[in-house]
Amino acid sequence: MERIEATYRVLSATDGSVAMARSIAVELTVEVPESLISRHPGIESEIVAKVEDLHEISPGLQQLTLSFAGELAGSDLTRWLNLLLGNCSMMPGVRLIGLRLPDDVLRGFPGPNHGISGVRELTGVHDRPLVATALKPRGAPLADLVKVCRDFIAGGGDLIKDDHNLLDDDLASFRDRIERCTAAVRETEGDRHVLYLVNLMAPAEELDARLEVALEAGADGALMAPWVIGLDRVRELTSRWPGVHIGHPSMSGVLTAHRDGGISLPIVHGTLARLAGLDGSVFVNAGGRFSTTREQGRQIAEQLRAPLGHIAPGWAIPAGGMSLDRIPEMIEDFGSDTMLLIGGALLADEKGVEEATVSILELVRDRFTRPKGS
Amino acid sequence: MERIEATYRVLSATDGSVAMARSIAVELTVEVPESLISRHPGIESEIVAKVEDLHEISPGLQQLTLSFAGELAGSDLTRWLNLLLGNCSMMPGVRLIGLRLPDDVLRGFPGPNHGISGVRELTGVHDRPLVATALKPRGAPLADLVKVCRDFIAGGGDLIKDDHNLLDDDLASFRDRIERCTAAVRETEGDRHVLYLVNLMAPAEELDARLEVALEAGADGALMAPWVIGLDRVRELTSRWPGVHIGHPSMSGVLTAHRDGGISLPIVHGTLARLAGLDGSVFVNAGGRFSTTREQGRQIAEQLRAPLGHIAPGWAIPAGGMSLDRIPEMIEDFGSDTMLLIGGALLADEKGVEEATVSILELVRDRFTRPKGS
Repeated sequence: MERIEATYRVLSATDGSVAMARSIAVELTVEVPESLISRHPGIESEIVAKVEDLHEISPGLQQLTLSFAGELAGSDLTRWLNLLLGNCSMMPGVRLIGLRLPDDVLRGFPGPNHGISGVRELTGVHDRPLVATALKPRGAPLADLVKVCRDFIAGGGDLIKDDHNLLDDDLASFRDRIERCTAAVRETEGDRHVLYLVNLMAPAEELDARLEVALEAGADGALMAPWVIGLDRVRELTSRWPGVHIGHPSMSGVLTAHRDGGISLPIVHGTLARLAGLDGSVFVNAGGRFSTTREQGRQIAEQLRAPLGHIAPGWAIPAGGMSLDRIPEMIEDFGSDTMLLIGGALLADEKGVEEATVSILELVRDRFTRPKGS
Repeated sequence: MERIEATYRVLSATDGSVAMARSIAVELTVEVPESLISRHPGIESEIVAKVEDLHEISPGLQQLTLSFAGELAGSDLTRWLNLLLGNCSMMPGVRLIGLRLPDDVLRGFPGPNHGISGVRELTGVHDRPLVATALKPRGAPLADLVKVCRDFIAGGGDLIKDDHNLLDDDLASFRDRIERCTAAVRETEGDRHVLYLVNLMAPAEELDARLEVALEAGADGALMAPWVIGLDRVRELTSRWPGVHIGHPSMSGVLTAHRDGGISLPIVHGTLARLAGLDGSVFVNAGGRFSTTREQGRQIAEQLRAPLGHIAPGWAIPAGGMSLDRIPEMIEDFGSDTMLLIGGALLADEKGVEEATVSILELVRDRFTRPKGS
């Protein structure tokens, strides 16, 4: 098996950087004093990470590339997180910024069930971004949520997902809500197939049961927050159950928000999300309620679509306070393989959900389905 | 049900702080524009977090206390993480630093199976810290690991845990290793009961099976890394299976290491660990390979022992490059209800594991079991 290469940006003075690099390599793999490593020759050659490259980016900032035996990582993301960042998350200034993953390591991961092309097959939308919304708020009468489903579909919308804060106290109330929302979607969609994804934010014991209930009720899949319910738990769920499943970024800011630690946005929402079997990643986009930049959004989208062995590319789902007037910029930044997720702004639109959805679809179609030669 | 109070430190200018406080309250609970909140009167009163207090700590730094309806959190930590930090993890400068949890909210959590007093009953050690070590490194022959178990127990050690990097490729090799290590522990312990905890770092599908295998083989419980396998998954495991289970901090640095975001060390390793049912928390201590301070370690220990409804207190387990000469300071900082976890330094000690363990026990006994009046 080929080796995995991981690149880190590390705050470290140049004169200590060689020792720093070795200490990270040891910490992530064996975590013992050097004298114990030399006791058994196989440990250094087979287990300890190798320092492949180390150079200064700027004074006090180093770029370090380690390689790991592919066998160490296995085909689960529990071991990956522990191996690639694990204890070094507690060292100041170590950020994972790059991964090079050989095909034979990737082979153990099935990847997304549908990915970009599979979702296009399901929806029959081949030539433009999908238009999506979020069901909310919690506390609204169920009839209102059902009406949002109907109006959004009547306006031409392609995908409805529960908001990540739309929570049901127990399995029975979850079942009731999902059955009513799904029925509304299926009654209204006509010849189209509109995707409806449920929010899988529930006790660990209930995640499988809720997903089963949702799929039985005719939902198309789920919204899952890997950094809340566990990244490898998401891999388990997506590989066990059929459906379209997309990632929600709740809690992911602890990994991505501080440039001197954690894991880069493209690895979190692109590489790791696809390894976890997610068909797309919701991420907070520039110009909304959060502070990411357009460039960061584009990097996430690029990583969602970049070659990754046999693993299908995933949908970019920019979100987090997106409004109708930002659609042209989102189209410019993310292109066609994108779910334009307009939540609160659509629900609050004075024109009403149906008319607002019509406006979005017009805008999107205008940009993507002009007659040839125009 | 009474309300949960959560306190945050937030980077924010004073003139924007009231709007900031409201935006966090809305983001964590309903995430919709204000016009949608007022559409249904129950949303504001029952769902949206209330701003209970807001004051400036220093220029540009605010302290914000929100309260949440106790019903919103439920009795699982999936919902808790999403509610208490969730999307605000992606806002710059929002750190959760305090929790006030009413008894009726806590009632849904069983808490640790054993806690401080239960582990003392099991081991029969009532009057001093426990002496613990970590089995490692990965790549060493199994016979060497077995010898570490024997020598450590012969020297008087109280608890052996697998290192978090001691990983087994599959269930069969895990079973083989655990059976041999457990057999060595049971053969050597004599009249004492030495605790042996296995490393539960495995694919999501195998966590239950591995824990079952370990308990059947006679292990006493497991080491679990909540921020790798999922915090609520740990709650599920500890409530489903008997045993002594302790938390490992792998990946937790993404929450704790940056003072302008994430969650404070005492909440992560104290409050949340106990809610997840862990009997103790391994945390990186001052003076080892990491950069935490003695004061931070003492705050974690304090939170592990602080009143928390009916939930048992947990063991402080300072670690991360601890050596024999640091034991007096650890005793001074953490007192008796502490597991002194000496891993690499014990394994590498020139005297050998048995003699080094004898030295530690002498040092510890000398401090805690002097004759009265001395």
